[in-house]
Amino acid sequence: MNLPLGFRYSSTFAGIRKVMKDDLALIVSDTRATAAAVFTQNRVVAGPVEVARENVRAARGGMRGILVNAGNANCATKTSERVAIETSRAAAKAIGAKGEEVLPASTGVIGVELDARLIIDALPTLVGGLSADRFDDAARAIMTTDLVMKTASAWVKSGDKGVRIAGMTKGSGMIHPRMATTLAFVMSDAVIAPDALRTALKRSCERTFNRISVDGDTSTNDTLAVLANGASGVRPRVTAFQDALTEVLESLARQIVKDGEGAKKLITIDIEGAASERAAERIARCIANSPLVKTAIAGSDPNWGRILSAAGNAGIAFDPRRVDIDFQGIAVCRGGLAADFSEDELKARLDEPECSVKFTIRGRGRGRARFWTCDFTEEYIRINASYRT
Amino acid sequence: MNLPLGFRYSSTFAGIRKVMKDDLALIVSDTRATAAAVFTQNRVVAGPVEVARENVRAARGGMRGILVNAGNANCATKTSERVAIETSRAAAKAIGAKGEEVLPASTGVIGVELDARLIIDALPTLVGGLSADRFDDAARAIMTTDLVMKTASAWVKSGDKGVRIAGMTKGSGMIHPRMATTLAFVMSDAVIAPDALRTALKRSCERTFNRISVDGDTSTNDTLAVLANGASGVRPRVTAFQDALTEVLESLARQIVKDGEGAKKLITIDIEGAASERAAERIARCIANSPLVKTAIAGSDPNWGRILSAAGNAGIAFDPRRVDIDFQGIAVCRGGLAADFSEDELKARLDEPECSVKFTIRGRGRGRARFWTCDFTEEYIRINASYRT
Repeated sequence: MNLPLGFRYSSTFAGIRKVMKDDLALIVSDTRATAAAVFTQNRVVAGPVEVARENVRAARGGMRGILVNAGNANCATKTSERVAIETSRAAAKAIGAKGEEVLPASTGVIGVELDARLIIDALPTLVGGLSADRFDDAARAIMTTDLVMKTASAWVKSGDKGVRIAGMTKGSGMIHPRMATTLAFVMSDAVIAPDALRTALKRSCERTFNRISVDGDTSTNDTLAVLANGASGVRPRVTAFQDALTEVLESLARQIVKDGEGAKKLITIDIEGAASERAAERIARCIANSPLVKTAIAGSDPNWGRILSAAGNAGIAFDPRRVDIDFQGIAVCRGGLAADFSEDELKARLDEPECSVKFTIRGRGRGRARFWTCDFTEEYIRINASYRT
Repeated sequence: MNLPLGFRYSSTFAGIRKVMKDDLALIVSDTRATAAAVFTQNRVVAGPVEVARENVRAARGGMRGILVNAGNANCATKTSERVAIETSRAAAKAIGAKGEEVLPASTGVIGVELDARLIIDALPTLVGGLSADRFDDAARAIMTTDLVMKTASAWVKSGDKGVRIAGMTKGSGMIHPRMATTLAFVMSDAVIAPDALRTALKRSCERTFNRISVDGDTSTNDTLAVLANGASGVRPRVTAFQDALTEVLESLARQIVKDGEGAKKLITIDIEGAASERAAERIARCIANSPLVKTAIAGSDPNWGRILSAAGNAGIAFDPRRVDIDFQGIAVCRGGLAADFSEDELKARLDEPECSVKFTIRGRGRGRARFWTCDFTEEYIRINASYRT
């Protein structure tokens, strides 16, 4: 991976998780970085989210780092906010930054006190271990029920030079698209103005992290932050930067869905012909969140009636007689009626690890949206029926 | 069961289901009955729903019967509406009623042509089998993935006389509260004005069938109809009738949830202290539809953090620090923080077949709502991954 210049990474085991696996990560920019972040829209918000939001606002000069732990969401506890402040300030001090220049983030179980001591005691090791090539270690330390590490990167050409973007994220349950889902951290060495970075993040997020769903539940800790430290000395065109950021976020978002709890299949849903992009997105969201659609696909059952019915739940007016549905590129429904297709052939195609659903409303509408979800398997239930044990 | 006077019931196997089990039922009132009905709010609406809605409107003099089949939803097919009209008219003719006096209803797979011939050919047997004591046969014939028959009844005292109400319904997937869920037919021998019956149905439905959820999916065929034929000669007080109707609908609604696909536990959710009943209902609905809450309860895991987080998804403002949560009557969260409870004791209590969740917002709000759902088990996935095979 072509990593952005001027960032260092570290991870360690601080004793927060029950299993001995790194649970604390630190990302540091050598200089103050322009920062933008989006957070959960859940009404119940974890302490670190409150503190991170405040720090991004307060640190006008830029952010120096991100301190993140897995294994405990630091949410719905007496000390939630205090722990987030204490630990992020301690980390800031340890790297020679101001208190508000480190963004705290947490993921894990809700409602269990997080001991700030565990983190503060681990800081010397964490800071001592900072290195430009430990990006993957940090990416692994933020995993919870994830089976695989999730990273992505891009290169934005600018004249004969260029800038680098590299991101990491984690899944894999409580995934539903609202502003930001789960934790994701993206670093870049681009020179970019704060407003431009905020706009780029907002737009890129809209069609990537806001278009995925594993189980329809948003989390209390969702945080997606971008740091751009300008270490490359290159100021790319904002549109080019935004395109590359979108590419990185789309890759990360797809990786989350693909590794969704219990998921065996990545499902890409395309809506076309709706009255607006917003209408298309709402239909896509309803299909993506339907347990009946997701279980049918788990069973390789081309039950398109469930897709039509799920779309009908979106509260968007459309004429079912104008709907075409394709599964894996095969026409299964035309004008709201069964198309003539080979059920056996399609069943075999649905056993593939990626599944495409296309839902088209014939007519003059130009609204389209792409959305990603995963199938819904018995394994999801097994994981979530005993998450804390 | 104390059945209403003046109704007869029948069922037969018409060859619509794949297994040889009655799939066609007929309910007949000896005289024209006042009718009221509510239907699905899904944008994709099955032919029989369109026809039933039209018939209830057209038959000002009252309805004579209900013709219902299981095994095929008669939805999203070329002939959907035509089949609903042809078969309900044929049934009307066979019982000596006008064409629009029979309400058609269907449940089963979507998108497969329903052969009207199967139903029309079965009509002589069906009509020949009509009997006042075959209520249960009809209730069994409308079952799909249901494991148990669902019926309920009530007696409304009026002076030294009274009227009877008896209802049947079916589940058990695609259950989500919007106007009416699934199929339910309620008969009464009360004398009641059409407007009063409509109002009673609307109000009773609001706090019963509109307050349940199995999987968050509404169906294309949802129909809840009440027939009151006046055979008792008794005109009860409207409020007494409505209370009894609510009792019958609540019993039926709870039975649906209890027999939800794969469900092992009935979950009753009570919200108190919200700003309004509507706000309370929205919070309850979000908790009831959260796969993470439902899987935790399946695993007897008192993971109250998921309940708090799910409530935070409802789009209703509340202060998490004022939230109390009780599980099986045991305090698990006080003021948004973990309460001091015995995890082992509560785990054991959560193995019981009924589970109560109480979510209270401390303060001056008087909005309250009760909602029913079921746990989410691996069995749900098994059933729905291979529904059509």
